[in-house]
Amino acid sequence: MTSLRFIVLGAAAGGGLPQWNCNCANCAAARDPSSGLKPQTQSSLAVSVDGERWAVFNASPDIRQQILQTPALHPKALRHSPIESIVITNADVDHIGGLLTVREKQPFSLYTTSAIGRVLDDNPIFRVLDPDHVRRRTIRLDEQFEPLAGVEARIFAVPGKVALFLEEGEPELGLEGEQTIGIEFLAGEKRAYYIPGCATLPDWLTERIRGADLVFFDGTVFTDDEMITAGTGIKTGQRMGHMAISGEDGSLARLASLDIGRLIYVHINNTNPVWRNGPERAAVEAAGMAVAHDGMEISLD
Amino acid sequence: MTSLRFIVLGAAAGGGLPQWNCNCANCAAARDPSSGLKPQTQSSLAVSVDGERWAVFNASPDIRQQILQTPALHPKALRHSPIESIVITNADVDHIGGLLTVREKQPFSLYTTSAIGRVLDDNPIFRVLDPDHVRRRTIRLDEQFEPLAGVEARIFAVPGKVALFLEEGEPELGLEGEQTIGIEFLAGEKRAYYIPGCATLPDWLTERIRGADLVFFDGTVFTDDEMITAGTGIKTGQRMGHMAISGEDGSLARLASLDIGRLIYVHINNTNPVWRNGPERAAVEAAGMAVAHDGMEISLD
Repeated sequence: MTSLRFIVLGAAAGGGLPQWNCNCANCAAARDPSSGLKPQTQSSLAVSVDGERWAVFNASPDIRQQILQTPALHPKALRHSPIESIVITNADVDHIGGLLTVREKQPFSLYTTSAIGRVLDDNPIFRVLDPDHVRRRTIRLDEQFEPLAGVEARIFAVPGKVALFLEEGEPELGLEGEQTIGIEFLAGEKRAYYIPGCATLPDWLTERIRGADLVFFDGTVFTDDEMITAGTGIKTGQRMGHMAISGEDGSLARLASLDIGRLIYVHINNTNPVWRNGPERAAVEAAGMAVAHDGMEISLD
Repeated sequence: MTSLRFIVLGAAAGGGLPQWNCNCANCAAARDPSSGLKPQTQSSLAVSVDGERWAVFNASPDIRQQILQTPALHPKALRHSPIESIVITNADVDHIGGLLTVREKQPFSLYTTSAIGRVLDDNPIFRVLDPDHVRRRTIRLDEQFEPLAGVEARIFAVPGKVALFLEEGEPELGLEGEQTIGIEFLAGEKRAYYIPGCATLPDWLTERIRGADLVFFDGTVFTDDEMITAGTGIKTGQRMGHMAISGEDGSLARLASLDIGRLIYVHINNTNPVWRNGPERAAVEAAGMAVAHDGMEISLD
């Protein structure tokens, strides 16, 4: 029987918790060991079938620390890594910055769409990934690929936008293309999804994930204007390409009725009140969903 | 009276200790809490006069973690950072990768040589540093600049090479130019140096630093062929642009007679035996020098 094992390497959105220059209530709590809120690293998920070989989805700038705090990813020989492949779901810094860390002549496969691959090619600094060791693989929307032996995966476009540093003027929002993708995992009878960034949940997408055993979903903001209210920024969640958890069209309402086995929010912004106990977290948990944290492990057996 | 305060944010060389895919004796010890050898982050130094405002020399990929573990660098208001400036001494990933982290619309000044600035300009991903907030300043060799009020600094070329990802074929070694620089700090009567990468110590350089109150110096490798002996790589220290600590022409012998107040090795590779107690570390300490560690603080009063 095939099992699928997941480890949340980083539960936070870009900038992590705390963000380097932020002293909002959550960030201040994360710096205070007595608060009970531990610091959380930036968005990444590890997947394995056998617990020995792993695929990592998104290379967060915190990947060195994430590997260090995850014994399953420690090297087993003088030069070695259990990480056989890395898959990138969009070209934002929080998802590609860590590629600068996984150098050191270690072989692995790097899967990107051609659009995301072009972003890497346009930045010579990513040449630190020596092509003699890192096998670049271009994956196409809706085609199956095998990031690990025994794991069938498929990427699909989800509503999003281009990476922040590629914006020229106001970006097109809710774009469906190779810029922002979700991942579908199939292993035996099990079906799981990883969708760390998603601007809206159109009907085709809810139908796709209906009945899944496990969904990791974009939990960036609880309310669309939360960064503005917190005084930490001027952008709405929508402007950043992320739908809110709350509200009539929020992900909580849209996902609750889809008969999904386990639903876990990831890519959680530092401003999001679900980090702490309170009515917002209670609302998520009352709907049968969970809030991820660094090191969270989920097995589908 | 002016005082100068230094905090070693990261004592290790590129890749840190442990490196993500390395299980050499030092890396294995750094993963074992009972070994006494704590993990160390990548190369960076913070400098202040008043303890309130700081300049950071080199933006390591670990900068988010470094700020988190350094209370002096925590924000003091909703959006704030005590970091007023960042100065880059070369364009290697371990010294510029962290620039991707210090986004979030925080104003600071970024000082580079024009050669290092061009590397940033050639990589559009560094556009995350919004010019509306980050003031780019080009500094010239041997000209004085003020990274912080009260700190006079001057950069000077030291023997080095271009960044690894810019190498095309075999690079010129021992190049003296804008690719690799040292920093001279002057504050009141005090004189200090930060030289995290240096391929050789020619007489002009020993004369320059002679009699300084404090020198942080390149401690990448203890012996030139140490990575080869450890089985972790095929390059010598020289090929990487770093002179060894040991040997007749090593930095230990060359620096010992220069009447320097305090001499501290930084940018220490994971393979370097000085990380642990043993004859190599004893040799460094017997010569009156020290091995840096994350969080080490030095004050010149």
